[in-house]
Amino acid sequence: MFLHKLSEILPSEQIFIGDNIDAKYLSDFFGREKGAAIALVFPKTTEQVSTVVRLADAYRVPVIPRGAGTNLAGSTFPEAVHNAIIIDLSLMNQILALNPETFTVTVQPGVLLCDLQEYVESHGLFYPPDPGEKHASIGGNISTNAGGMRAVKYGVTRDYVRELEVVLPNGEIVCLGAATVKDASGLSLKNLIIGAEGTLGIVTKATLRLIAKPEFSVDVLVSFSSLRTALESVPEILKTGVIPTAIEFIAGSVVQMGERFTSLQFPAPKATAYLLLTFDGPKPQIADDLRRVENHLRELKALDFLTLDKSGSVTVWKIRGCLVKAVEAQCAQEPLDLVVPIDKTADLIESVQQLTAETGVVTVAFGHAGDGNVHLCVLREQRNDEEWQADLTNFLTHLYRKAADLGGLVSAEHGIGIAKKRYYLALTDPAIVTLQRQIKAAIDPKGIFNPGKSYSI
Amino acid sequence: MFLHKLSEILPSEQIFIGDNIDAKYLSDFFGREKGAAIALVFPKTTEQVSTVVRLADAYRVPVIPRGAGTNLAGSTFPEAVHNAIIIDLSLMNQILALNPETFTVTVQPGVLLCDLQEYVESHGLFYPPDPGEKHASIGGNISTNAGGMRAVKYGVTRDYVRELEVVLPNGEIVCLGAATVKDASGLSLKNLIIGAEGTLGIVTKATLRLIAKPEFSVDVLVSFSSLRTALESVPEILKTGVIPTAIEFIAGSVVQMGERFTSLQFPAPKATAYLLLTFDGPKPQIADDLRRVENHLRELKALDFLTLDKSGSVTVWKIRGCLVKAVEAQCAQEPLDLVVPIDKTADLIESVQQLTAETGVVTVAFGHAGDGNVHLCVLREQRNDEEWQADLTNFLTHLYRKAADLGGLVSAEHGIGIAKKRYYLALTDPAIVTLQRQIKAAIDPKGIFNPGKSYSI
Repeated sequence: MFLHKLSEILPSEQIFIGDNIDAKYLSDFFGREKGAAIALVFPKTTEQVSTVVRLADAYRVPVIPRGAGTNLAGSTFPEAVHNAIIIDLSLMNQILALNPETFTVTVQPGVLLCDLQEYVESHGLFYPPDPGEKHASIGGNISTNAGGMRAVKYGVTRDYVRELEVVLPNGEIVCLGAATVKDASGLSLKNLIIGAEGTLGIVTKATLRLIAKPEFSVDVLVSFSSLRTALESVPEILKTGVIPTAIEFIAGSVVQMGERFTSLQFPAPKATAYLLLTFDGPKPQIADDLRRVENHLRELKALDFLTLDKSGSVTVWKIRGCLVKAVEAQCAQEPLDLVVPIDKTADLIESVQQLTAETGVVTVAFGHAGDGNVHLCVLREQRNDEEWQADLTNFLTHLYRKAADLGGLVSAEHGIGIAKKRYYLALTDPAIVTLQRQIKAAIDPKGIFNPGKSYSI
Repeated sequence: MFLHKLSEILPSEQIFIGDNIDAKYLSDFFGREKGAAIALVFPKTTEQVSTVVRLADAYRVPVIPRGAGTNLAGSTFPEAVHNAIIIDLSLMNQILALNPETFTVTVQPGVLLCDLQEYVESHGLFYPPDPGEKHASIGGNISTNAGGMRAVKYGVTRDYVRELEVVLPNGEIVCLGAATVKDASGLSLKNLIIGAEGTLGIVTKATLRLIAKPEFSVDVLVSFSSLRTALESVPEILKTGVIPTAIEFIAGSVVQMGERFTSLQFPAPKATAYLLLTFDGPKPQIADDLRRVENHLRELKALDFLTLDKSGSVTVWKIRGCLVKAVEAQCAQEPLDLVVPIDKTADLIESVQQLTAETGVVTVAFGHAGDGNVHLCVLREQRNDEEWQADLTNFLTHLYRKAADLGGLVSAEHGIGIAKKRYYLALTDPAIVTLQRQIKAAIDPKGIFNPGKSYSI
């Protein structure tokens, strides 16, 4: 009956049912899990999203919103038990308006990050959030509060969302937030939707804040004799008053893995650890920033401070950008995005090394040192399914506990989804889990929006 | 019975009952309204707050949280009908910890903004939010998402809150957020508390983000031949890529009012309108910023571009800072904090002038041009109570409608409280009001926290 009604409200070419659903929509990003759905639809308008949700609400059919499908935590994975409908927003991919007077752009949720960045930059503007996956959708970035490289200076997705059009679980369409810079008018429902992983509403339009495009950007590679020295330099850099756009860390051994994968040569002498710093702005300001940071880092025993030319920058970012894929090419892995306070990154890495010594589980680490966000790839190596599940669970239980002890969180920017849910729930105050579920029950009393993801039951 | 139990859980010197409650706690900031409360308490610890709230929950006694009492929208006003207990947090005024490694400070909610700013600056650090009322409490700033002068470059209070300890309406104590820079772990309950005007929880501790203290700060006065030209220059300034710390606007006539009130002399030739710009950072960067902005503004017909020396800066900010009081000294007034998109400020001001012509209601306008936040003081002049209520209501109804048509909001930074509630509710999508009330009912099922304020019933 539901499917019959569905066929009445959407053109047939926008509906896929049963065996006609491509397997990629029934799995996670890595294609490992196997789920199921009763239907997959591709709405083209907010009204179509609303109509489909109203129907799902009437028939109590769970709804799984999906953008570009790049989520790494299984946030868009359709668990077979739910018999859900997947609403894929990738056809709603228009950039609707650019307003250079208010420094805002209005987009549909299916617009890809790379397309948005290119578009606004061609107009002399700049969308600062820069998550690693450039082919993610903006709707997905909002739903996970995606972070990325440039958070040190510019913040994360949350900081750039002015206004959201959202379809609620009852099918109602609401506009949350405003095109204004300031807002002290009522509860910030917009901020509740951001990072909710589609459990409270489906974003169907977003007005995002932009800034003027920085005139220049310069990358610097700083070499260190140990990863600890590198990581402990991060607060010191920020104490100079200079805020680099990005502060990435990467161990020498990981660089070599990236070199092999890309067949590129890292444009710096071999070292145990590197910080990759980016500075942007007008030329005189960058020169002044470089001078200050270099002076301070040399006092702090940095081995080398290498300002990269254009081709050097391209090479380094290609190597930095390929790391998850380079690891994945070597063996299956579990990608993590832990975060700790910025003065605790070195301690976290040390705990990881200890855990490896104790458990035999090996990881590859790199990430955003400037904001304490460590990307660990946990390597499966030769383990069979059973060994892998047991070892991974044990390793993650101890690791996340350690991160929490350091004041950290399970997820910095990927979201909780289903992959991290058990660890998140184990480490979160039950009162806070209850609060979230109470809010969920208030907004989605039938529990049809993305059931079982993140905090939800 | 409630009062008896209260006397058992708090030392008597922390409790005031009946006639022992000073009148200032039973009124709004201007001392105009007359409310009532059954008790006023001054807890000294989070546990005391929690204990009092548990008792209030058990007896269904409404709770009104209060900080320094500087709110301009009546958010802390105890309406007599509620027979509430006022929880005043001003004795919880300790700065608990400064962490220069993570650039954070942890404070109790009763710490005053001026004290926090002075403290962190004495340690070479900087708390960027800068609301006009420096004697407001940090708890109050958080509860209204206070904005202020420096929002153009640095954002508002919301952008500087890392972690909150909150007492919920059932007395539970929870910690929301984390000391980390990034967070994609569950719903952002922290952001729900910020700006909630005490309707969902009482902030008992806050960890705030800091930055390194800018080395220098320079103020510039730019003169224009009309207020429209001044306001329309704001997006143009931002298009240079330079983001000033502050962009304030002030009409020549308002300057004269401030001069009379302070007996100071504005350090610039007479003009119809001024923009007051602040730039901060290292000296070479400020010099470069000034050059760019001056060049662009001169092309745009600015009459004069005057870089202020230290005494000039002090004078101008004294005059700018006294304006509400200068107006208030002249006659009673209603202080507004409307906000529109930054390209609509000139249109809003024009609408105000039209409304004045139509209704005879006179206003004084100044404010934060860089973020579209216009402070209007609506002058009572010689009206008696009845005339004033009728004329003010009519004026505000039309004015807020116009602001909404321009994409604006009723409150940028003061909150809705009770003063703006009717206008906020009239202009807000009923679905959004319902959503807020559903969330309120989920978190505060007995409706005891700050009843009747903002969106709540």
